[in-house]
Amino acid sequence: MANDTPILYSYFRSSCSWRVRIVLAHKQIKYEYKAVHLVRDGGEQHQAEFRALNPLEQVPAFQLGDKVLTQSVAIMEFLEEQYPEHPLLPKDPWPRAKVREIVEMICSGTQPIQNLSVMNMAREDLPERVRWSHHWITRGLAGVEVILQQTAGQCCFGDHVTLADCCLIPQVYNANRFSVDMEAFPTIKRVANHLQGLAAFQAAQPSAQPDYPTDP
Amino acid sequence: MANDTPILYSYFRSSCSWRVRIVLAHKQIKYEYKAVHLVRDGGEQHQAEFRALNPLEQVPAFQLGDKVLTQSVAIMEFLEEQYPEHPLLPKDPWPRAKVREIVEMICSGTQPIQNLSVMNMAREDLPERVRWSHHWITRGLAGVEVILQQTAGQCCFGDHVTLADCCLIPQVYNANRFSVDMEAFPTIKRVANHLQGLAAFQAAQPSAQPDYPTDP
Repeated sequence: MANDTPILYSYFRSSCSWRVRIVLAHKQIKYEYKAVHLVRDGGEQHQAEFRALNPLEQVPAFQLGDKVLTQSVAIMEFLEEQYPEHPLLPKDPWPRAKVREIVEMICSGTQPIQNLSVMNMAREDLPERVRWSHHWITRGLAGVEVILQQTAGQCCFGDHVTLADCCLIPQVYNANRFSVDMEAFPTIKRVANHLQGLAAFQAAQPSAQPDYPTDP
Repeated sequence: MANDTPILYSYFRSSCSWRVRIVLAHKQIKYEYKAVHLVRDGGEQHQAEFRALNPLEQVPAFQLGDKVLTQSVAIMEFLEEQYPEHPLLPKDPWPRAKVREIVEMICSGTQPIQNLSVMNMAREDLPERVRWSHHWITRGLAGVEVILQQTAGQCCFGDHVTLADCCLIPQVYNANRFSVDMEAFPTIKRVANHLQGLAAFQAAQPSAQPDYPTDP
């Protein structure tokens, strides 16, 4: 396995891909970036070449040799176990569980409901779609804020970066995109400000990816 | 920690509570069941007593001594690490990752979108609500079926019960509730039939819980 360079199939703006990119950058894992454009030509994820690799037609997909893994949290947990340097889960059981609690509040409780395909089916017109995502992000982050008030230091849990932080930043980006009032979530805002200054988070952001559009 | 009897705050029909009940039963962990009725009196999860325990106002909540953990997958991962007997994750990295992939397809990719609060906000009238949940369950299970065709034996992954199975059964129950055509998912149907015969799954089902309604 160590001989293979991992490949990440990613789209610059996909928040699930973004989470995995932060983990890869934080752990300083060398990998090949393969862009899958989710919009162009009806979505490259639906084309035969990518479907042969990932029949779920989604990014991220993580390839190691002839094996392919999908689903961002599963990929992050795999990376945490296989690349233990620069750990992203605390060793003690309770802090470890609290980090996973925050991860799940974002990755199950918030992002899936506000994402593009759900929003499109929920509402007919654009203002209503924006209202839909705004509602679910606000509701999800309100829960995260409650937990972070108990757990946060500089980061979501104490002062070290964890998987929770890797999930928080793409969700905050989505919140800003839908004009969610972040003043209501002072702990999230403070932690996000700290994380955005870190090298791994800068390397993983959409504008630093090879498929980020160069034309205005 | 070993001196405390764990408490599970649960609602008999909550699929997220149900997942955790299967894990507890499979691992033969003794616990106290505390029912939180999600509908009666506007929802007992919103009342002051429960909010003091879990400000997220959700079940399941898992209490050990003075510590409370929410979010079903975080609870399941905690139980897997703290009660290693009768394991629910394979030891080898790749099977382990594939089990978590299936867990996430159900717990992030399917259930959050079809659940009650999302359905209520998505659609005005009952037939439309049913159509909403039907759509997202069908879509989610179609993805699970693709993966299970590669991984399943008697169970979701090979012949041993894993966390994936603990998540599958409540989702199949929801599918049947919304009249999803399970003939389209022969592998899921076969695995679910096998699991439903196992003692842990029978002990965890809604009708076996103390808060299951006795009046018709």
